[in-house]
Amino acid sequence: MPLRKTPLWLALGALSLAVLATASAFRSPQPKDAREAAIRKVLAAQQSDWNHGDIRGFMQGYWNSPGLTFAGSKGFTRGWQPVLERYAKTYAGKEAMGTLDFSELEIRPLGPEAALVLGRWHLQRQAGDVGGIFTLIFRRFPEGWRIVHDHTTQSAPETK
Amino acid sequence: MPLRKTPLWLALGALSLAVLATASAFRSPQPKDAREAAIRKVLAAQQSDWNHGDIRGFMQGYWNSPGLTFAGSKGFTRGWQPVLERYAKTYAGKEAMGTLDFSELEIRPLGPEAALVLGRWHLQRQAGDVGGIFTLIFRRFPEGWRIVHDHTTQSAPETK
Repeated sequence: MPLRKTPLWLALGALSLAVLATASAFRSPQPKDAREAAIRKVLAAQQSDWNHGDIRGFMQGYWNSPGLTFAGSKGFTRGWQPVLERYAKTYAGKEAMGTLDFSELEIRPLGPEAALVLGRWHLQRQAGDVGGIFTLIFRRFPEGWRIVHDHTTQSAPETK
Repeated sequence: MPLRKTPLWLALGALSLAVLATASAFRSPQPKDAREAAIRKVLAAQQSDWNHGDIRGFMQGYWNSPGLTFAGSKGFTRGWQPVLERYAKTYAGKEAMGTLDFSELEIRPLGPEAALVLGRWHLQRQAGDVGGIFTLIFRRFPEGWRIVHDHTTQSAPETK
């Protein structure tokens, strides 16, 4: 192929395309640490809201969409509003809500925009403690990380 | 900017970069239909293997790694081998295994390489049917889609 001269604008244009395409290939995923910190913050806020008897506040950790799903002992609940109502019915009043504690959190990335979170939950209550394990799927939205699916299992009732 | 002549090789080089970078931006994710079909195929194979009393075959649907996790009524089981042993112990023999049926599958993509699958399971058995719901996380590996996490809940025992 003979060495021929081509316009500078063509070379620069192609170079710009290369830079833009490379940049879009790495759609600024959050660093792993930042992602974990953001997810832990959502769960810490949920715990705090729950312990103030604020179920609506607690529900801010969930994707506010009819697409939200919750898997519990009685099957699937679909949509943010029905999940809120389920919590409000199951835990009516501050005494039934007790003191919530999440522990043994394990956060596993599922690509740049999603994460799997495993952990244990425990409710300390006068009427008797309850607890169990959960699987959460988080997705990253413009407003932050939110739970899009929650599968929660309750273990056999515990005694103090 | 004055129009200056630059070598053709520079323009061509930059253009190649642009094409390569654009291609890498779309790391050939499977089309949604192909992904769903691949995942359904894994679950259909699991169902078939189970119904032939082949727990090892059934286990091929799971990620063969110590990183595999299973969330059940007794907490977490970690690793492919312990999950296999848990199934072998809980369902010892073809009669205890019964006839497995997955239904109401819902497959939700979580980026190009992961998917969330919800569904129901049912075991038809002489000793009494059992069933419940599950949450599966699939990831795409060079060998295909595999379950990397399974959260399974058993409902109250059913009678025929």
